[in-house]
Amino acid sequence: MRSRFILIQTSHAGNVGGVARAMKVMGFDDLVLVEPRWPNVLRREETIQRASGANDVLEKARIVATLDEALDGIDHLCATAMTPRDFGPPTRSPREHFASLLGGPSPHAASPQRPGGVAFLFGSERFGMRNEDVYRCHACLSIPTAPSFGSLNLAAAVQLIAYDWRLALGGFDAPASGTPERAPADAQALAGMLQHLEQALVAVDFLDPAAPKKLMPRLNQLFNRAAPSEDEIHILRGVAKAMLQVADQAKR
Amino acid sequence: MRSRFILIQTSHAGNVGGVARAMKVMGFDDLVLVEPRWPNVLRREETIQRASGANDVLEKARIVATLDEALDGIDHLCATAMTPRDFGPPTRSPREHFASLLGGPSPHAASPQRPGGVAFLFGSERFGMRNEDVYRCHACLSIPTAPSFGSLNLAAAVQLIAYDWRLALGGFDAPASGTPERAPADAQALAGMLQHLEQALVAVDFLDPAAPKKLMPRLNQLFNRAAPSEDEIHILRGVAKAMLQVADQAKR
Repeated sequence: MRSRFILIQTSHAGNVGGVARAMKVMGFDDLVLVEPRWPNVLRREETIQRASGANDVLEKARIVATLDEALDGIDHLCATAMTPRDFGPPTRSPREHFASLLGGPSPHAASPQRPGGVAFLFGSERFGMRNEDVYRCHACLSIPTAPSFGSLNLAAAVQLIAYDWRLALGGFDAPASGTPERAPADAQALAGMLQHLEQALVAVDFLDPAAPKKLMPRLNQLFNRAAPSEDEIHILRGVAKAMLQVADQAKR
Repeated sequence: MRSRFILIQTSHAGNVGGVARAMKVMGFDDLVLVEPRWPNVLRREETIQRASGANDVLEKARIVATLDEALDGIDHLCATAMTPRDFGPPTRSPREHFASLLGGPSPHAASPQRPGGVAFLFGSERFGMRNEDVYRCHACLSIPTAPSFGSLNLAAAVQLIAYDWRLALGGFDAPASGTPERAPADAQALAGMLQHLEQALVAVDFLDPAAPKKLMPRLNQLFNRAAPSEDEIHILRGVAKAMLQVADQAKR
């Protein structure tokens, strides 16, 4: 399964190196940086030193300007955030969530199917994740930490998530898994549909852009749970288009 | 249960700081250094910087000259070593071993009783653990890593062991989720919303009642997967109502 680690607005080069090492030691190599503080962070001395031999992960890593560009081929997004957000995705421990995601026993086994690609999002060292990024996610992973001291280093957080995810995938001996029967559309396609729908909801006077009342985050969560296929995204875009057309007629 | 982390002949100050942070974030504070390279390592600038607030762990830490002096109150020793030793203790994955140690289900549930104090031993960055130290241990913990790249940073190894041990001990209480536990609406409510939506889709000329093309069964499946709450049903009915109103205006 495609497993991507996405660092958003990371400021410390050493952490980027530590993250590459933490990923590689668990057999992952798909790293994307969104708006890092240093444009040349993948080639900085401190980065390479802390990567300690995980140079191929750094060489393969991509730097992009927006989260959207980091999401090709991904259909399940996990935020990692200390503080749960109102109207955000449900908060889960990594182990519990991974078991449910992969069809293991879990009290929250809501997902009927395995995703095709999973991304783990990590916010900046100083500010964590922005609300708008958390809202897009299917789950918010909360690593259990001491109530009095939750200050987990970025590379350490990646190490723990990579470890739990690798073990959930079966460790290093397990064979590759099969293809899901119904392939959900990726997060980019879902985001595009939601933007289209948002325009339509404004056009039919249901959504007031001046007082949006968390409508779009709520719809985002609803559609995350539904995990629409490409065909279904096409249908929903058709609905949005019809709404825009009729609203246009109404205003003539 | 007493849980001690013992670093043997550690050479990098930054790692000692990283270890203190990794321990504290999992609620542990019993750190002992055996023969560190720098006698003043607990007060070095790099140590304190990487500890990132776990100063109390550093202040409480002890430096001793031999492993024996580090073992007061400990009755179960876990080595952490990449390579199993002939005649050494059995090699186990941390998760498996901790379950057995604490009486959980495990194929290796050999320990008849819970220990009173457990220590985790970590060798030097360059040479790992000496045979004579490994031989003293009750188990050799092998963290699963990629066959081609097993280079786990010392603080990262401590982080993983501390995490698995904390969870085996029962973990911390998870933070409350930002979103209240979500009760799905019942099937009647969902069916009522779908009928409302169907009228709206006809009104905006997206659904042709003469050629419905399985649109409603498909939307029904999509919303079944999403399992909307009462609140969300209310939102979706609001959208349907807005669509009907704007279509009505368009036809005037």
